Amino acid sequence: MSTEPRQLHLNAFLMTPGHHDAAWRHPDSQPHRATDVTYFQQLAQTAERGKLDSIFFADGLAVWGRLRSNVSGGLEPLTLLAAIAAVTSRVGLIATASTTFNEPFHLARKFASLDHISNGRAGWNIVTSGSVTEANNFNLEEHLDHAVRYQRATEFLEVATGLWDSWADDAVLLDKESGVYADPDRVREIQHAGPFFQVRGPLNVQRSPQGWPLLVQAGSSEDGREFAARHAEAVFTAQQTLEDAVAFAKDVRARAAAHGRDGLPLILPGICPIIGATEAEARALEDELTELQVIDYGLAQLSNMLNVDLSGYPLDQPPPEHLLPTEQEVNGNKSRFTLVSDLARREGLTIRQIIARLGGGRGHRVVAGAPEQIADAIESWFRAGAADGFNIMPPILPTGLDAFVDHVVPELQRRGLFRTEYTGTTLRDHYGLPRPDARSTESESLLASSSL
Amino acid sequence: MSTEPRQLHLNAFLMTPGHHDAAWRHPDSQPHRATDVTYFQQLAQTAERGKLDSIFFADGLAVWGRLRSNVSGGLEPLTLLAAIAAVTSRVGLIATASTTFNEPFHLARKFASLDHISNGRAGWNIVTSGSVTEANNFNLEEHLDHAVRYQRATEFLEVATGLWDSWADDAVLLDKESGVYADPDRVREIQHAGPFFQVRGPLNVQRSPQGWPLLVQAGSSEDGREFAARHAEAVFTAQQTLEDAVAFAKDVRARAAAHGRDGLPLILPGICPIIGATEAEARALEDELTELQVIDYGLAQLSNMLNVDLSGYPLDQPPPEHLLPTEQEVNGNKSRFTLVSDLARREGLTIRQIIARLGGGRGHRVVAGAPEQIADAIESWFRAGAADGFNIMPPILPTGLDAFVDHVVPELQRRGLFRTEYTGTTLRDHYGLPRPDARSTESESLLASSSL
Ligand SMILES: Cc1cc2nc3c(=O)[nH]c(=O)nc-3n(C[C@H](O)[C@H](O)[C@H](O)COP(=O)(O)O)c2cc1C
Ligand SMILES: Cc1cc2nc3c(=O)[nH]c(=O)nc-3n(C[C@H](O)[C@H](O)[C@H](O)COP(=O)(O)O)c2cc1C
Repeated sequence: MSTEPRQLHLNAFLMTPGHHDAAWRHPDSQPHRATDVTYFQQLAQTAERGKLDSIFFADGLAVWGRLRSNVSGGLEPLTLLAAIAAVTSRVGLIATASTTFNEPFHLARKFASLDHISNGRAGWNIVTSGSVTEANNFNLEEHLDHAVRYQRATEFLEVATGLWDSWADDAVLLDKESGVYADPDRVREIQHAGPFFQVRGPLNVQRSPQGWPLLVQAGSSEDGREFAARHAEAVFTAQQTLEDAVAFAKDVRARAAAHGRDGLPLILPGICPIIGATEAEARALEDELTELQVIDYGLAQLSNMLNVDLSGYPLDQPPPEHLLPTEQEVNGNKSRFTLVSDLARREGLTIRQIIARLGGGRGHRVVAGAPEQIADAIESWFRAGAADGFNIMPPILPTGLDAFVDHVVPELQRRGLFRTEYTGTTLRDHYGLPRPDARSTESESLLASSSL
Repeated sequence: MSTEPRQLHLNAFLMTPGHHDAAWRHPDSQPHRATDVTYFQQLAQTAERGKLDSIFFADGLAVWGRLRSNVSGGLEPLTLLAAIAAVTSRVGLIATASTTFNEPFHLARKFASLDHISNGRAGWNIVTSGSVTEANNFNLEEHLDHAVRYQRATEFLEVATGLWDSWADDAVLLDKESGVYADPDRVREIQHAGPFFQVRGPLNVQRSPQGWPLLVQAGSSEDGREFAARHAEAVFTAQQTLEDAVAFAKDVRARAAAHGRDGLPLILPGICPIIGATEAEARALEDELTELQVIDYGLAQLSNMLNVDLSGYPLDQPPPEHLLPTEQEVNGNKSRFTLVSDLARREGLTIRQIIARLGGGRGHRVVAGAPEQIADAIESWFRAGAADGFNIMPPILPTGLDAFVDHVVPELQRRGLFRTEYTGTTLRDHYGLPRPDARSTESESLLASSSL
């Protein structure tokens, strides 16, 4: 056959000082650079050197985790990505932002601005926010119910896409002679009035290079999958086993097909690659990191994921079965709860062992090995239909990303699975996704109101 | 005397395609670059070449003015300034953001991020937003009352400053050996509960180089002055006459002194310098721009400022006195209403003449002349106590800023009124303002909650 094999998509999930929860104690990591823009700019340049589709920042609206024993207090992703856009030219730039604690006008505007600033490289990881500490920073004592959060997310996206389409691509006429800058008939109010939002529009940003940012989603509960199937163009997901990953991918694709969205969304499971020159070297690094874990931190993280306070229980026994809630009872991150409790049950792990297993990727797949073995781990899931690409979560930064770009990417390229050069310029180009058309516009009339 | 004379502060107010409302029709302007990040990066580099204290972007949360006849749909300032920070190293970066339509947690976080990204160059122009079209994009049919907006602004600032102080400067210990990243006793919850906001804190950004961004304010009504006197470190203001400007500066300084804030805030009136090699050349440019004005646009702007629909009234007569409301009746921009109605009355101007007079600076002072004359206009107000510096509003960009930096700045330097080199690195350094101390911290306990 002469046709090129299906191509992988690779996204670098960046987080100071790397994804292993003990990374900050390892000599290779740079936890002192949590607020240093050049640290992130250099990581993005490394990703671009590796021809990766994109980089990605997670986000939360409160101090996450116990700041006593892990890095926190870094930079807001959209602001940071604008500074990264200025020193890169191809790599996609995906920011997480919450639909629960934002207003659609602000967020639509920021993503449109980032898309202009980056010449079409913006992506949005749409999350609904899982923690009550976030709610406490936004005038709420209790968290919104999980189902309500997804209802709000749906309406939020309707408003945001309406705003992105509110300027037709050809709205700006710029006729100096006749004195017509823009055609008011090609810039429309959206007049949205729904249960969560009333937004008149239009957006105050001209239509951006990609029309809409790439829409990514990262919740895997029932509601999360349904949202992904209807709206997402790519999905980040944490999967422990090939079997679960294939089942997840099939389920999301079937749901999407039922909504007439064949071939969408792209499925991108996380993988934390612990890379050594040899397998033995990789395993030694993994062990070294496990040794450095702060057990209290791991216990707090695990308690949070399982929605139960495990402190005081024997570390060398499994978490007592009767303590664990059902997924239904969890109002935070439902899918992560289920992943972790399944993992613990399936393998009969003790609390200490679960903490070690979650250290590398908080529930994402961890693979330790030589570059070829990492490439095998990627290729096997890719060929088995579990993934259209991967969310690469280096255990330590910058070394883990350097190793991936310098040793794993060339191996994937040799296998014909990954691009050796960018073929397009926008993030949508990289993921092979079309630019949305602006929907038909209606006329509007606007009042003057500028007195600066 | 051997002591250096008091030094001027200069801020470049940047706006596509320049401040004259007909600039976009002039051949020197670049209205096609409204969403082009390199346009703004180059302007910022020009300001930095001129050793200006800062650049500044205004902002609104709706399409401003009539898009048919003026540039609109540009970029969101905070995102844009992060991209500018990446290609500059000294010039301050001031973004406007509204306290009426934002949440303090988001905004405190973005300014702290920008301050880190720029190594201490962030400033915030605090505005309360004057138009109902903005309210319509944020779930409101009516605008909040002027007084309520300022009450909200006061509480907003209390929350934001609390968040900026929530991490002590020495909170991060980074002790890899013992496994302690940050000292939880030096990162405090703010537990704010007030009529507008309930915010638990702490901020999820470490304390930034300046502690707080420079706080700028730009409303000149009674409530606006009081807010400036209590909280602002610098004030932007539109003033037509030296007499009014001196009275304004005295009033704001006296109010500030009554709150124990002697010497604050710095007063920065706007000036639109129309620069020519000779006065005749400058006047020719001014006339050329007046010729290019779109009368319908000017009429809509004027109607908006005067809070009355003037369409249909004879252009060559003054606006009918009985139509004009009182400042009390105005709920939008009170001070601009008063400035414009006073100007019209004082000089008995016709509607057409007012539109011409407002074309250059929307009510700010316009001065046409050779570089020495512009320097005279600056020096005279500076020496008379009307100003600590100026908000420079070039009529056309980039040419108007080039002319200012290449011809007016050297003249001011020759007169010993303006720096020839930056002496500090932060925006606060440039304005001679201290870095705020973090207020005393209390202990906090945080829940773990990260499952990305
Ligand atoms: C790779 C990945 C990244 C995520 N990033 C974030 C994030 O940055 N912020 C966040 O609030 N949630 C994040 N999540 C969590 C989910 O998006 C979602 O908010 C949460 O899982 C609840 O959804 P669910 O109950 O449908 O699973 C992430 C999940 C995954 C798999
Ligand atoms: C130089 C200058 C810049 C301003 N920039 C903005 C702006 O960007 N956005 C805004 O909503 N208002 C802006 N304003 C208006 C005021 O900040 C304020 O919101 C408005 O004047 C109402 O306040 P007042 O009634 O106290 O005058 C500006 C005013 C001046 C003098």
